[in-house]
Amino acid sequence: MNLYQHKVQYYETDQMGIVHHSNYIRWMEEARMDFLSSIGWDYQKLEASGVISPVTAVECKYKCTTKFSEVINIRVYILEFKGVKLKLGYEMTRDDTTVCEGQSEHCFLNREGRILNIKKVYPALYEALSQRVVN
Amino acid sequence: MNLYQHKVQYYETDQMGIVHHSNYIRWMEEARMDFLSSIGWDYQKLEASGVISPVTAVECKYKCTTKFSEVINIRVYILEFKGVKLKLGYEMTRDDTTVCEGQSEHCFLNREGRILNIKKVYPALYEALSQRVVN
Amino acid sequence: MNLYQHKVQYYETDQMGIVHHSNYIRWMEEARMDFLSSIGWDYQKLEASGVISPVTAVECKYKCTTKFSEVINIRVYILEFKGVKLKLGYEMTRDDTTVCEGQSEHCFLNREGRILNIKKVYPALYEALSQRVVN
Amino acid sequence: MNLYQHKVQYYETDQMGIVHHSNYIRWMEEARMDFLSSIGWDYQKLEASGVISPVTAVECKYKCTTKFSEVINIRVYILEFKGVKLKLGYEMTRDDTTVCEGQSEHCFLNREGRILNIKKVYPALYEALSQRVVN
Repeated sequence: MNLYQHKVQYYETDQMGIVHHSNYIRWMEEARMDFLSSIGWDYQKLEASGVISPVTAVECKYKCTTKFSEVINIRVYILEFKGVKLKLGYEMTRDDTTVCEGQSEHCFLNREGRILNIKKVYPALYEALSQRVVN
Repeated sequence: MNLYQHKVQYYETDQMGIVHHSNYIRWMEEARMDFLSSIGWDYQKLEASGVISPVTAVECKYKCTTKFSEVINIRVYILEFKGVKLKLGYEMTRDDTTVCEGQSEHCFLNREGRILNIKKVYPALYEALSQRVVN
Repeated sequence: MNLYQHKVQYYETDQMGIVHHSNYIRWMEEARMDFLSSIGWDYQKLEASGVISPVTAVECKYKCTTKFSEVINIRVYILEFKGVKLKLGYEMTRDDTTVCEGQSEHCFLNREGRILNIKKVYPALYEALSQRVVN
Repeated sequence: MNLYQHKVQYYETDQMGIVHHSNYIRWMEEARMDFLSSIGWDYQKLEASGVISPVTAVECKYKCTTKFSEVINIRVYILEFKGVKLKLGYEMTRDDTTVCEGQSEHCFLNREGRILNIKKVYPALYEALSQRVVN
């Protein structure tokens, strides 16, 4: 598990006086990129080597509103990975309160847009991800 | 069902050359607001009367990438509403291709943040929504 | 001069209850792209042909706040163009009130990032733009 | 002068493969809020006490493109302040390269939207800001 922190920016608020719900999707990306770096697989290096990893599904359950200048802790964990589909979970907390629970699904494509089996083409990345699947 | 159109903006793209996935969550909001107006319940009037309707859950399944300057058609429909929790569905298409399927859940709160039963406090809104639930 | 309309979205508001100032920069881009299409030079076609046109400067003077669901009219005009630097002006109004005045500057680059003199490499685009410079 | 760091996020890029120009306006806000906190005037406390400070003008000169995962250093300094109009400058660098120079102007309003003379109503804030004006 990886811990990432995001400080809520003013431009992320809306006229309800709280963070607009679309921003949590972006925070999940911030935390995911940080997680990949933490296990030695910077996403920019992955893209530079010809692999892109688009998001194929995303979901958020909002438990508690968040506000400008609060610090949100985001934990990322791997729910499922057998080489093709990567499924991640996110737990966002402020102090001891869960504010949002998220999930995202990803595939891996080469530059021509063909789906890659990471186990075959990037065995080291496969190892790094599959050994971190939570049970 | 309501049909809303969104033209993809340049600032909605990312370095993959496609629309960043977080924008679909915003398009769902655009289509939802348009839907509420179309049934006579402008959200700004609802807020002005003291009711806010935060998003409590959201999900997207991305079926096909979209690109700058494409026109996306968004159909909004009510999946569930019995007076407290409102569950909406979204079907996004480009020409005849489904590009994204989404869902969102909402509650209704008064200015003090207490959950409202719309059937009791806004019976006309309750009628407008519940008679449009799809089966 | 070209007229473009933008309807203010909920996600563009901030906790002051007004549109966040960064969005006007995006509306300028929306209006600019619409202007280019209106004179027969879709930006996506320009990029597809190997020309990109990054923004080199931008400015906004905010005259009046704007709110959710308002319709903003944006007029785009060419302030200066001699083939290399393109300078545009923007006048944003709501009803008869000017809400924002903007300017943007652009250059034209080829795929290798070298500055292009549009007069030489795209004489038809040069004509289309230079004959529309306002005095 | 205050130093703030922003790490470029993937969602801030566009299909040119660089950061979309509108994001620098948001980074200026991030750095400005950090600057206010650093001199003891958290903006959220200021708003809670009934003072809002809208942006009345903004400008950016883009000197060099920036990319995903780069770290941008942002220096904020006060260009002008005599109690009513606050004018700030921003210098954004990556390593030793200036990537963007910005300016923003602000006024101060009470909850009724009336312009405040900070020298009169918040003399301590006036002191904190005016003694930091650069020459």
